Amino acid sequence: MEKNISVGLLGLGTVGSGVVQIVEGHQEELVHQLGCGVTIKSILVCDVEKDRDVQVNPATLTTNPEAVLADPEIDIIIEVMGGIDEAREHILRAFKAKKHVVTANKDLMALHGPELQYAAKQNGCDLFYEASVAGGIPIIGGIVDGLASDRIEKVMGIVNGTTNYILTKMDDEGVAYEDALKEAQELGFAEADPTGDVGGLDAARKMAILARLAFSTSVDLADVEVDGIDGLALEDLQFGRQLGLKMKLIGFADFQDKQIEVSVQPTFLPENHPLAAVKNEYNAVYVNGKAVGETMFYGPGAGSLPTATAVMSDVTAVIKNMLLGVTGQQVVTPRYDKVLKSPEQRFGQYYFRIHVQDRSGTFTEISSLFNELDISFERILQDPIKNDKENGLAEVIVVTHQTTLEKINQALEKLAKVDVVEEVKSYFRIEGGYDQ
Amino acid sequence: MEKNISVGLLGLGTVGSGVVQIVEGHQEELVHQLGCGVTIKSILVCDVEKDRDVQVNPATLTTNPEAVLADPEIDIIIEVMGGIDEAREHILRAFKAKKHVVTANKDLMALHGPELQYAAKQNGCDLFYEASVAGGIPIIGGIVDGLASDRIEKVMGIVNGTTNYILTKMDDEGVAYEDALKEAQELGFAEADPTGDVGGLDAARKMAILARLAFSTSVDLADVEVDGIDGLALEDLQFGRQLGLKMKLIGFADFQDKQIEVSVQPTFLPENHPLAAVKNEYNAVYVNGKAVGETMFYGPGAGSLPTATAVMSDVTAVIKNMLLGVTGQQVVTPRYDKVLKSPEQRFGQYYFRIHVQDRSGTFTEISSLFNELDISFERILQDPIKNDKENGLAEVIVVTHQTTLEKINQALEKLAKVDVVEEVKSYFRIEGGYDQ
Repeated sequence: MEKNISVGLLGLGTVGSGVVQIVEGHQEELVHQLGCGVTIKSILVCDVEKDRDVQVNPATLTTNPEAVLADPEIDIIIEVMGGIDEAREHILRAFKAKKHVVTANKDLMALHGPELQYAAKQNGCDLFYEASVAGGIPIIGGIVDGLASDRIEKVMGIVNGTTNYILTKMDDEGVAYEDALKEAQELGFAEADPTGDVGGLDAARKMAILARLAFSTSVDLADVEVDGIDGLALEDLQFGRQLGLKMKLIGFADFQDKQIEVSVQPTFLPENHPLAAVKNEYNAVYVNGKAVGETMFYGPGAGSLPTATAVMSDVTAVIKNMLLGVTGQQVVTPRYDKVLKSPEQRFGQYYFRIHVQDRSGTFTEISSLFNELDISFERILQDPIKNDKENGLAEVIVVTHQTTLEKINQALEKLAKVDVVEEVKSYFRIEGGYDQ
Repeated sequence: MEKNISVGLLGLGTVGSGVVQIVEGHQEELVHQLGCGVTIKSILVCDVEKDRDVQVNPATLTTNPEAVLADPEIDIIIEVMGGIDEAREHILRAFKAKKHVVTANKDLMALHGPELQYAAKQNGCDLFYEASVAGGIPIIGGIVDGLASDRIEKVMGIVNGTTNYILTKMDDEGVAYEDALKEAQELGFAEADPTGDVGGLDAARKMAILARLAFSTSVDLADVEVDGIDGLALEDLQFGRQLGLKMKLIGFADFQDKQIEVSVQPTFLPENHPLAAVKNEYNAVYVNGKAVGETMFYGPGAGSLPTATAVMSDVTAVIKNMLLGVTGQQVVTPRYDKVLKSPEQRFGQYYFRIHVQDRSGTFTEISSLFNELDISFERILQDPIKNDKENGLAEVIVVTHQTTLEKINQALEKLAKVDVVEEVKSYFRIEGGYDQ
């Protein structure tokens, strides 16, 4: 077979440029895998005249979406333009024209994934989106195919490289949050407006997508509880170290008795947990399956070529399906109705850092407050109590045993009302088997 | 579609029992994925009467291979009996009967993989073998599908759980090799005859399979250079620690300028390398792709349910292909002729531990020996030189810069002839960017 498959590219930014590079540079690999070549026939851009890092034939560039979406020679649309509304319309338009779609757009898939998958199926088209989660890591394939027969119980991911870079700097070099963020911005790991990353929204989008797939249930972005790392205190990382814990921004998704919880929050992990060793801008997704046990997928979570590799793996899969005549055969119906866990069904260990009045009886008062709620302590750090001469304050670190989020919320309410407590400076969930 | 797919099982040992458990326990998952159920119709065993951990309908058991292989209702054969000749014959017989095959048999795939794949293709059948490498880790899928468009340059794997368990014990607890092996045997992580594991052959088989896939070239088991961990000295792990290095039994496969090298040997890695954090019986495969960069797949390398999960993922894939009518479509032809690197094309850093005469001039003599070969030093450990009063010996640790295996071999020859050198106690390759 000497035919060529023509694809259309929507967007020529970081990922789009990577796709062009791989299609040009790895044509031999593609021909070997597929028995046919791949050509990028046209590329939708905002500005045809703009200088670009990657060399493309100017004749392929267009500012008219229809030139790509309505071209009968184009079989596959690669959406790497980002954004939501316009990208969604283009993709729906592509399906109407019976074109298959590969997208790297996590924002779009988190918000409109089920709608788009349904539209693909209706039109007998494929919609693949491996690149939308954790860049170059083939995690969606790992969950959908690799663990096909298993029942996935938990997914924990470091799915945002910017925040992991910042946390690594803080932990390894004792740099404060603001300085680590600034360095990440200077190196291009963080954007000028880092809100989406450090606030946790970017990770939440990816976790919504992963939780949907892993548990075969509909999860909306709004179901993900989100807390970021902005303003995280270096002290907490240092106390964590004394306790054998590492702080990571963890996307957590858990499925028990057909009830789910999905969250993104700064979380302590035991320092020997596989995720604790994931450094700098790297991502990793830890999957716990009933039969398989613990697995982890590690790699670059972003970047031009890594993300483009995932895009092109999807393109390869679509082309194989096309050649075999079996596109549009994905299961898109969730198996389970979505039931979110309530706070009394959400278990975890917690770390508290509390500023208290440094006087006798303080400890007894705090410990009896936790006792009344039936929350027991795994550890208390008394070492780090540093006297604050001016205000007469001391610092207490408490690590609880497993308890419910409901009780933790009650404890926080009570702590706020107790005289000896000046302030609960911070509290974090501990995951990954610290008490085992 | 309410139909059931019938499968036949060859073998009901550890993995076979896991397959039975998953088919029984995860039937709902399978029906959701496939739209049809899966039934194990018959099972080939040696002894029908034997007591088993897993409950099976006695009527499904048979000692007659033909009862499974010739049954027209059986579409898929799952080979988990192990061994080579008999398993090979059964699989070839299955293909003749147009049955698809899923196998977990690394010994067989390492030796006869290409022959079996060719036979599958000739008969329009699928042959899948995800479970043959690294148990529950979907590494074959990761390489074949996840990195489909990329050019893989290096694969490094901890692909034997027994040896990794032993090395972890030695490193974490300062236990001698013999004691760690004994403990592994008591816990069931090592067999009574551990030769295949500790000698490196088990890992070599997996690396032959991985190298074939990753580089699309024919690699025979005989092409893999094998060295095991038997008798490894605790001292070397301890010196490694001083140098920031961890010892692992690393399967190494590298592809440069269309030339390959594949080896299994105890290797030092920088302690911050992702593979260095892989502990106990866990496996991990690190893949370096030209575009994607560094990725790693981590999980249980063996065990009944993890391995059975991989088997059942393959079964799921075969059934999807069957339902879509597209079985037997895999690419089985290698892209490249096999060219093995010669010793002068194999680069690496090396660690030497040398016992020398403790007298003046010794150091100069050794360093000029390396100098003459144009091998430069990255580090020399002088601290650990402990005087051996009786024999007047001292211990020297030398870490070289990148050099060729050819030069290392020359250095070893020369060191053997030099008076001041009592003995080269050990030497190991260092991989993973120690000099970066």
